[in-house]
Amino acid sequence: MTKIERVGISLEKELLRAFDGLISEQGYQSRSEAIRDLIRQQLSTERLRNDKAVAVAAVVLVYDHHATALMERLTELQHSHFLKTISSMHVHLDRHDCLEVIVLRGKVGEINRMGEKLISIKGVKLGRVNILATEGL
Amino acid sequence: MTKIERVGISLEKELLRAFDGLISEQGYQSRSEAIRDLIRQQLSTERLRNDKAVAVAAVVLVYDHHATALMERLTELQHSHFLKTISSMHVHLDRHDCLEVIVLRGKVGEINRMGEKLISIKGVKLGRVNILATEGL
Amino acid sequence: MTKIERVGISLEKELLRAFDGLISEQGYQSRSEAIRDLIRQQLSTERLRNDKAVAVAAVVLVYDHHATALMERLTELQHSHFLKTISSMHVHLDRHDCLEVIVLRGKVGEINRMGEKLISIKGVKLGRVNILATEGL
Amino acid sequence: MTKIERVGISLEKELLRAFDGLISEQGYQSRSEAIRDLIRQQLSTERLRNDKAVAVAAVVLVYDHHATALMERLTELQHSHFLKTISSMHVHLDRHDCLEVIVLRGKVGEINRMGEKLISIKGVKLGRVNILATEGL
Repeated sequence: MTKIERVGISLEKELLRAFDGLISEQGYQSRSEAIRDLIRQQLSTERLRNDKAVAVAAVVLVYDHHATALMERLTELQHSHFLKTISSMHVHLDRHDCLEVIVLRGKVGEINRMGEKLISIKGVKLGRVNILATEGL
Repeated sequence: MTKIERVGISLEKELLRAFDGLISEQGYQSRSEAIRDLIRQQLSTERLRNDKAVAVAAVVLVYDHHATALMERLTELQHSHFLKTISSMHVHLDRHDCLEVIVLRGKVGEINRMGEKLISIKGVKLGRVNILATEGL
Repeated sequence: MTKIERVGISLEKELLRAFDGLISEQGYQSRSEAIRDLIRQQLSTERLRNDKAVAVAAVVLVYDHHATALMERLTELQHSHFLKTISSMHVHLDRHDCLEVIVLRGKVGEINRMGEKLISIKGVKLGRVNILATEGL
Repeated sequence: MTKIERVGISLEKELLRAFDGLISEQGYQSRSEAIRDLIRQQLSTERLRNDKAVAVAAVVLVYDHHATALMERLTELQHSHFLKTISSMHVHLDRHDCLEVIVLRGKVGEINRMGEKLISIKGVKLGRVNILATEGL
């Protein structure tokens, strides 16, 4: 079981009211939940500065599936021995374009480089690498 | 068939050398491909400023699957009538944590709000909304 | 006098310990101060989504001061009637390059466009627009 | 004298037209200038991944000047021996709030930490660290 602690924080009345307004709009049911999310986000960002930290990445690619060599190169890269491709998902956007999400796990530096390699493949139109440090959160 | 145009650009020798070095490291096979990617990235970012533009979003969530109400709420939200959830993928990270990627299509403002709502669900530890404007790229 | 409120939040013991470690490294003297900063950052980001909100911008430019028409164009733009340039600072980086920080106040949409115009001037090598919503924080 | 090279790039007609539209709105007078800026931005971002690279930072702070210990601590930190504070600028925003821009030069890791320290000072409401790698651009 995870141990829960309760801490007190003090803040300006006006700031609190504005925060309450924002998080209720976002859908939060409690202040604690919203503040925990801010804290986790901050910790995750901090950990990603360390190239050796272990993290997961969701690489999002948009590409034209008519680009012939691309699918082959994508598969080849996903079998790279440096890191584990955990999973991937393929979505048909329209007659030409596909969106592919590839989930990687490994060291920050490695999955960043792997993400860049995926984005640089000829035929990939747009790409984004989302790295999240999940340990200890 | 897409029509290809050829344009000339002038740039400092030193800048060109540094760029060539960077893109070869990233895995690009040609300068044109690398510059097209920079241009598409810029156009996509620009279009996302418009709340009414149509785009796709890959929402990445990390959550503890023991959080009971969460799965239910996730499914409920994905059936929201405002926009189309195209697809989703679920990855088991460890005994506690899951990573879920949900692909949405709709107006920038709507999918942003939907992403926030997903992240605010109790039990979701980390989240990221990636919005990509794909039209005309 | 600003009224201060005290609220209680609950969070996992492990998360709290990791947060305490991070903020002490960053130099924070209290948890409240660190959490207030996270909240203000979040509120400021949220407000900037509204093009009509009033904000301040610090536009950072790096340029070669030998570019002749540039200084003239910079000054001309700063006298634009759409918004108030509050102040600017000029720093000599080396024999060629200068860094200039220009502080603007106005509506988010306007100061964004003004920032882009400044960055697009021939001779400006690098630029960054920092918009901060300061009201009610 | 800087040597200029001319290179040819090929891209889709539709993409070119969209790019031309965007950059003319942003104020660019030529495609070459806009593409050079994209390239420099990319190179600068890449270099900042290296903690040891030399860069400049513009740290933007918003604080209430009534916070008594703050000004003292700010000055103290600026005399830190780890790096050179090149310059700073102070702007009065309203009766309470000031905006201060502090320009630092040093290694990426050092000026990042220094920026965090400045933002963590009690009384600082909002802060942003802009790091720019300027060498070879």
